[in-house]
Order: sequence, then structure tokens, then C-alpha cells
Amino acid sequence: MTDSVASTDRRNLLKGAAASAALLAPAAGLAQTGRDSDREAIRRAVDAGYEDSVRRLREWIALPTIAAEQRNVQEGAALMARLATDAGFSGVRTVPTGGVPAVFGVLDAGARRTVGIYFMYDVKQFDPAEWASPPLEGQLFDHQLGRAIRGRGATNQKGPETAFLAALHAFRAANKRLPVNLVLLAEGEEEIGSPNFINTMRDPEVLAAMRRVDGVIIPSNGQTPNGNANIALGAKGIIELELVASGERWGRGPRRDIHSSLKAQVDSPVWHLVEALKTLTRDHGNTPAIDGWFERVRPLTERERSLIAEAARTRSEDEAKRSLGVQRWIDDLPWRESLERLASQPTVNIEGLVAGYTGPGGKTILPARGVAKLDLRLVPNMTRADSEAKLRAHLQSRGFGDIEVNVSGGYDPTETAEDSRVIRAQQAVFTRSNVTYSLFPRNAGSWPGFVFTGPPLNKPAGQFGLGYGSGAHAPDEFMILESTNPRVAGFREAAMGYVDFLYEMATIR
Amino acid sequence: MTDSVASTDRRNLLKGAAASAALLAPAAGLAQTGRDSDREAIRRAVDAGYEDSVRRLREWIALPTIAAEQRNVQEGAALMARLATDAGFSGVRTVPTGGVPAVFGVLDAGARRTVGIYFMYDVKQFDPAEWASPPLEGQLFDHQLGRAIRGRGATNQKGPETAFLAALHAFRAANKRLPVNLVLLAEGEEEIGSPNFINTMRDPEVLAAMRRVDGVIIPSNGQTPNGNANIALGAKGIIELELVASGERWGRGPRRDIHSSLKAQVDSPVWHLVEALKTLTRDHGNTPAIDGWFERVRPLTERERSLIAEAARTRSEDEAKRSLGVQRWIDDLPWRESLERLASQPTVNIEGLVAGYTGPGGKTILPARGVAKLDLRLVPNMTRADSEAKLRAHLQSRGFGDIEVNVSGGYDPTETAEDSRVIRAQQAVFTRSNVTYSLFPRNAGSWPGFVFTGPPLNKPAGQFGLGYGSGAHAPDEFMILESTNPRVAGFREAAMGYVDFLYEMATIR
Repeated sequence: MTDSVASTDRRNLLKGAAASAALLAPAAGLAQTGRDSDREAIRRAVDAGYEDSVRRLREWIALPTIAAEQRNVQEGAALMARLATDAGFSGVRTVPTGGVPAVFGVLDAGARRTVGIYFMYDVKQFDPAEWASPPLEGQLFDHQLGRAIRGRGATNQKGPETAFLAALHAFRAANKRLPVNLVLLAEGEEEIGSPNFINTMRDPEVLAAMRRVDGVIIPSNGQTPNGNANIALGAKGIIELELVASGERWGRGPRRDIHSSLKAQVDSPVWHLVEALKTLTRDHGNTPAIDGWFERVRPLTERERSLIAEAARTRSEDEAKRSLGVQRWIDDLPWRESLERLASQPTVNIEGLVAGYTGPGGKTILPARGVAKLDLRLVPNMTRADSEAKLRAHLQSRGFGDIEVNVSGGYDPTETAEDSRVIRAQQAVFTRSNVTYSLFPRNAGSWPGFVFTGPPLNKPAGQFGLGYGSGAHAPDEFMILESTNPRVAGFREAAMGYVDFLYEMATIR
Repeated sequence: MTDSVASTDRRNLLKGAAASAALLAPAAGLAQTGRDSDREAIRRAVDAGYEDSVRRLREWIALPTIAAEQRNVQEGAALMARLATDAGFSGVRTVPTGGVPAVFGVLDAGARRTVGIYFMYDVKQFDPAEWASPPLEGQLFDHQLGRAIRGRGATNQKGPETAFLAALHAFRAANKRLPVNLVLLAEGEEEIGSPNFINTMRDPEVLAAMRRVDGVIIPSNGQTPNGNANIALGAKGIIELELVASGERWGRGPRRDIHSSLKAQVDSPVWHLVEALKTLTRDHGNTPAIDGWFERVRPLTERERSLIAEAARTRSEDEAKRSLGVQRWIDDLPWRESLERLASQPTVNIEGLVAGYTGPGGKTILPARGVAKLDLRLVPNMTRADSEAKLRAHLQSRGFGDIEVNVSGGYDPTETAEDSRVIRAQQAVFTRSNVTYSLFPRNAGSWPGFVFTGPPLNKPAGQFGLGYGSGAHAPDEFMILESTNPRVAGFREAAMGYVDFLYEMATIR
């Protein structure tokens, strides 16, 4: 995904404190329910289907859909549709969005409740030269946590999605009826910020089907390397953009790079950019200073503060600092306050700066153009549209109206109630699987959950799954298939986690 | 050279208004002196030696000395020494500097006066892929101004230097005694900012020889494409540097790039850099704001203002704006005031910015490091040492003491009195050659003239020569060898310009 828990950094940060009991082996708690024998049959089917699942995953990895490059758009959608059909969805078809098409299907089990499943079938760009093995090969290798698969999409998001499909195959192979109906909506441009995914709601059949769901999950490898998990009750929104200052647009400064000695006579678009940037934040960049930026910001509730206090107790500050290579939090805040800040504050981050000469040493030029790449994280009740308008108005009113604001993607924050079934079902699965987890008010990263949690659907939605992988957006992305750590789920245990989740969704009050 | 008139931009900017009479052909004015017949013989010798000169230039171009790459350091010094010896210098030897060696030689003509000649034998880096012909081949081609040679160093500075050597060969071939003695000092690291050239003054023989000179020139292609010329009475100094902000040095922010969602919890070294940059200037980057920066700045004198007013009358503002791709000068100043600003103001220029993700689109990271590449132009009586100390103190006192200041090169401003023989001799040659020229108080670019004009020598020094070339530091660098424009000197006329200059230096009062 764009970011959120798929990030190693986030993952490490969210790593909980010590947990205890061994995981999963006979799914202890489930013995209490009346579905023991069904579950055992399904479990055997997951085991029996494991090789097929890995084959399926490798085939999927071999066909990367990359929206930014318009790569395998039709082919990727077709494969997504086939994977869905093979797993038991019916009426599977593509849904036009104005961009890369979505894929839609339903699985009617004649059940009382319906669960929405969000997939992304696209992946992030990759440079094969940076990889230990060809990124489209899905090579199996031995990781310190066990047998693993390495390839683009292994953990973000084809691996966990394949584990979810494996659960569906196992239900069918075991001849067991699904306890809930499913609606699948798979996106093909998550990695460019889901610019068109909301348009799927304009399709009457999709909208009608989604209106019936009780909640939505995207399958995810939600465990840390020590087996702990985090349940986020939402995620920040995001706007990703470039600010481009140029002599061309400004009407001042040069139209192409000129000799730097002219600086005494000619304006500098790069200085213009630096001045514009400086107005966007204060406190060393830590506090957004865009006009009206905090108007809609909702402070943390008491419950959110207490969840953070609990998270601060169970998570290791030292481990977080070490894994991030950070010595101090902003303002030297203590751990709990830094987590409150993480969850509650909107940000204006500089992802990158590019202007003029960027090679080794120097070059005496006055550059005609400068670019700042920014991401703005939004918290409830900010919206992408309002925030973008505020940024433009801010620049305009301060004499920077010539600076191009090129928004490449983004979406609103997303929130899901703690008492929704989607959240409670996750807790139930983690508890019964002896996975230590913490609830956290909001992921500081972003995912396009707003499509489900915002209008017109207003449904609970979250990321869920057992399993571990890393390297999203990076070289050597992988997912653990056969875990040697009893507290960390491998592929089969992850599939069983989805089985259990569907049972919970069917039965939880 | 590092910049100054070698730049096309500067060259175009300095292009004068319309001039009139035809140039050079029989060197009109010289008929008034008693040296007519000697000059004619030398002229025939220049013609006769032309093919040898071109061969010499091509051989020199084929051996690029590049200090930044430590390329051909010894070989380049050896060739420089041979070229000097072949042209009549004696006692030619290398002079250790702590960096790339200088080359020193004298030519004792038993004359009353002595002239210093500054050469640079190094060249700027090049990328052959960007060139129309191999940059070390010195290929001859037809330019719109006539037959030309293309290669690295063709105009910066081997071409004009070879023309100067051609003048010396011609004196000898014509069996004519030089009217002045010469001291040659050739530098091998001009292109990295002459970091060690001043150390040549520690060599007692060099210092003693240079103390005897009346003034110093570096041979240069000093004409614009329309034949006009400019005489600068000095040049700004320069400091080239990188500011590097990093989590490592700051002790805040990450030590390596982390996920951008962490911005709400972790400081950003790139924002730290932007804040530091912002303190260095005001007025959109047009006015340096470094503490004490203007303490030593000497305002323009009345004479300097009147020279600029004269230059404003003879140079075309429209042409300058067009050639630079600029619509307005700083503060919408009128032409004359903009030229006053150009000559008189120190600058803080951003050559380049590099931080985080610099490729297409975005990448949600919080970068651990940011770099700003700056050049600071210095005017009299600022010095490099004092200015560098002020920059460091400024950053320190504002809480940016962690930001690395990596100075890669630089030197003091340089000034030469208008009534010095070096300047008056140039004027005499231009006048007698019917070249329209203007005097300008100061080149806004920089050259290491301070080695000659500052202590311990305190000699007049300037760039001088007839001829035209372009593409210094750029691909397809060239020099016109056989001009089709009667107002623009070719190689032979350039050589005769040096002949005339030496005569002027011998006889001018």
C-alpha cells in the first residue's frame, strides 16, 4: 500500500512489548465454538492447497501492474478477475474508474452478513539491479524467520491477498459453506494514491453490493517480527504533491539556467521556492503554518488518549528509536506524548528537493526551476479537497501564486469505530490466537479506507491479517511462508487467520 | 575559467551596442608608431606559423588536465612546460603548490619592462556523449562566424593561450626581439577554484620574478559575436560550498531515510536546512542577510557609477534580456541601476538543492539528509576568509551549527586600477583595432586575479585578448580560428592582438 503498516518503519515502531504464549498451533480458543470440525477440515484443505497457493502467488508476482508506468493494466485486471473467479466469486468484472479499472465480484453464501474485501492488484515500481533475485521471479529463500518468498508484491499486497484467497479455496475444497457473503473490490492504482478508486461508487451494482457489507478489510501481514500486532482505528489522509517554482511561470528570474554571477541582477526561482516553503511550517518544520490548517483538526478524545497511553506502556521506546535511527522525538517529548503527536498532528513533510545542479561538487549556475516534493498528512476532520484549496489560497495570498501545485494523489483520513464488528472480530482472532496486540487511534500512515468509511458508504474498514513480510516499496520485498517462530504466522496460519476472521464476522454480536 | 567572461551568458550580457569600423586587417593605428616593419614581419610569421599553432592547440586539447579527477596532472604539467620552453621561455619548471603543480618560466628580452602572463592548463570535466564531436579531438568545423575548432579547452583557455604562444613563436621566427620581458605562471587547478595557486608565492624565485612585473594578463577570447569587447577593472570573489544538514550531525531527525508518516513524531533535517537557508537572505533571496555581511562592502565610487552609466548607454538592455531569457531585473530596476546592482552587490546564490527522493513523482520518505549548493560572490573589500568565518558564525548563532559547511573553493575579489598600464594598453589595442569596448568596474563573475592584485604582489591584472569562442564548461566548446566577420578576430588576429599588447606595454607612458 501507499504506506501505513506496510512500511517496515511503521511496523517496527508498532512492535509491541513482550508477548507470551505460542501462536496458532491448534487455535486454542476456537475449541469453544461449535465450528471445530469445520475448521479442522478447512485447515487440512489449506495445508493440502499450500503448493497451489504458492504457485498462484508466484504467477501473480510475475505479472506486475504498475499504474505509474501504465504497465500490465488490462493484463493485471484480467488476472485479478481470474483469481477472484477461481476462488469462488461470481459475476466478476472490471469496473471503469477513469483510470486503471477496478475488479468487482460477489460471493453469495446465503449468509446473514456480508463482508467487504478490498484488494489492490497493482505494485510499486522496482529496479531489478537493486534486488538479490529477479523481483518478478518470486524466488523462495531462507529468511531468519523461516522459508520466505522474495518478489515485488510479496507482502504489499499480493502475499496476504493470496493467503485470503487460499482461505476461500480451502472452504470450497473442504466443502464448507462460507459463514458470510463477500463483496470483492480490487483496485489497480493504489500505488499512485488511489486517484480514481472512489469512482467505483458510481457503479450502481457495486454501490448496492457495498452498501450491504458490514465492514471492509484489506488482507495484510499485520504482525511484527516478534509476533505482535496493532489494530489501527483509522489512518491519516494524505496529499502528495510537487511545488514547482520557475522563471517561466513567475515572470521573474531566468527561463533557463544562467550563469550564477547574474544573481546580483536577476531573481532566483529557487530562492522563491525556499521562501514559499518556509511559510508552510514553523518550529523547524514541525508545525504546519498553512492558513487555516488547524480549523478542522479534531483533538484526541479521552478514549484515544488512553489507547495511546496503553500503547506507550506496551511498546518499547528504545526499540522504536533504534529501528528508526532516531535519538530524540520532536521537542524532546516523552514517549507517550510523542505517540500522541504521531497520532494527532497533521504534517507537512518534504520528501525531496531538486533544483539546479545536483551532481558532485558545484556548478556556478542560477537555476531557472526548483521542485519540492511534499506529502501532507491529514487528520480528522480535515479533507483532501479543503486542504488542497487552503494550500493554494495560502500560497496565493503570500505572493507565491505562480508556484505550480501539482497534486499527484491523495485522499481523506479514515476512521473506524472501536466497537464496529470489523474491529472486534480482529481483536477476537488475535486474542484466540494468543497474538499480543494494541489498539491505536490512528495509523500515522495512509490508506484509501475513506472510500469505505466516508460517504456514500460510511462503513467500518481496516487492515487485517496474521503474517509477516517487509520491503514494501523497497528492494528484496518478501513474505514469510513457513515460519520458524511459533509466534509469527506463516502463509497457512495467515490463511487460517482469515478463516477465523470470517467466522467471527458471522457470529460476533 | 571558473566563470567570468568565459561564460556565454556573461558574454552576451556584456555585448555592446552597434560598433562601426572594420577590424584589424592592416591594424590601422599602428602605422603611427615606429615599429611598422617589425610588426609586418611578425605578422607574416604568425601567418606562416598558423598550421603549427593549430597542431599545437589540437595536441594540447588531446591531453586534458582535470584537477577534480586528478587526471593528467603530471602529464599536463609536463606538456605545459614543453609548450612554454618551445615558445622561448627559459628555466621552465614546475612549482609545488600542495595541489596540482604550477608551471613557471621567464623570457628575458633585456627589456626595460616585464609583463606577467597567467595561464591555466587545466580544463573543466566533460561528457563525450553530449558533444557533436569527440571533445579531445579538436575537430575543425564551419561555424556561422567562420572556420572553428571544437574541443574541451578550445576557448577556456587553451585556444587564446595558444594564440599568445603563437605571438611569441612569431617574434622569434621573424627574428625580432620582444619589447618586454615575460614571466609565465601557469596554474593546473583553476577549474576547482584555485585552492592552492596562492602558494606559488612561497617560492622565492617565483615571487622575485613576479615582483618585477608591471602587470599580469591571462589571454582570453574577449570579443562578443558582434566584435565588441569589455574591459573589467576587476572581478568579484567567490566562495563555493555545500551546506549539508543531516540527522547524524544534528542529533535530531533520522539517521537514514524513514517513512514520511513519522514526520509527526520525528524532526526533519531537510526542514532544518530550509530554515537555515531562509536566514541567509531576504527579499526573495536578493539581499544577503548573513550577520555582518555588508560590513566591508565598499560602495561604488563616482567614477564606477559613471562607467556603468556609460556601459548602460552602449549596451543593449533588450539584447541582454533576450539572451538571458529574463523579463525583469531584480526589483524591476531600470537598466543602469540593474548594472550597478550587478557590479556592486554581493550575492548568496543557490546553485542546486538535493534532498530525499529526486526522481519522477513522489516517494513517502522523511529524508535523513539535505544538501544546498551555494556560491557566494564577494565584492571589495570583502575577503574569502572573513566571509567564510561570518557564514559559520551566523549559522552557529542561529542554532544551525550542526549544518556542515563544506567549502570547495573560492578566493577574494580582485581589482585593477583604471590608470594601470595593463588596462591602458588594452584600451590602446582595442582603439587601434577599431574594436568598440566599454570599461566596467567589475566583472560579476570571478577569476583568481587576487593572487596577483592582492598581497604580496599587489599588481594590476586582467583578462585580455581579441577573438571569440563559447561553450566554456558546456558541450561543444569552440573557438573561431578563421573569422568571416571582419569585426571579429580569428586566431591570427588574436595572436597579433597579443603582439600589439606587448608593444603597448613596452611603450605606454
